[in-house]
Amino acid sequence: MERIPILRMGRLLLVTIQVDMHDRLAMALQDDLTERIVKDRARGVLIDISALDVVDSFIGRMISNTASMARVLDARTVVVGMQPAVAITLVELGLTLDGVRTALNVERGVKLLESESD
Amino acid sequence: MERIPILRMGRLLLVTIQVDMHDRLAMALQDDLTERIVKDRARGVLIDISALDVVDSFIGRMISNTASMARVLDARTVVVGMQPAVAITLVELGLTLDGVRTALNVERGVKLLESESD
Repeated sequence: MERIPILRMGRLLLVTIQVDMHDRLAMALQDDLTERIVKDRARGVLIDISALDVVDSFIGRMISNTASMARVLDARTVVVGMQPAVAITLVELGLTLDGVRTALNVERGVKLLESESD
Repeated sequence: MERIPILRMGRLLLVTIQVDMHDRLAMALQDDLTERIVKDRARGVLIDISALDVVDSFIGRMISNTASMARVLDARTVVVGMQPAVAITLVELGLTLDGVRTALNVERGVKLLESESD
């Protein structure tokens, strides 16, 4: 269980982050995700972080980088399920998720992505 | 991160199992899932096990029990994303996922559940 599964839903990919991210896992996720975007011709990526109690600068950067990689492959990224405490911490610490949009939950994220790809 | 997130997609709930299950985590998942089925009035539950390299009798029983609990709450359960090696092991060990249906991936699982709730 060293890889984070990537689920396909139509033209979107869904990643649920549940475990503590470390360098190797983050790299594996980026490898897998970019490969899957190309293979599945995905238009969007949803990253669910509802299981994360803490988003530090490492995870924030990882998410930003992943979104940048997706963007050059013509896929948009939406982060969903952020816990209120995480939102507070992000702002208080001045961390920004560059180039990443957010939505309350998976459903709204899907709507956001689908409204754009029309 | 002691709980497995449950994602809502319309009238369906999606659970991605990524971490080693132990007693306490399995119990927490069953608690959360039954609560969410009632709260979200879910008609179906998708359990993604694509991250699992091994499904032993404990996990098998946990999935069966979860499906039974969902059923009495009028929600159907479909297990998706089973790895080929897991399917082989299940059969070789004579483990059955009682009362649980399977689908190749999330998309097919969603179709299966939607075709029934019509």
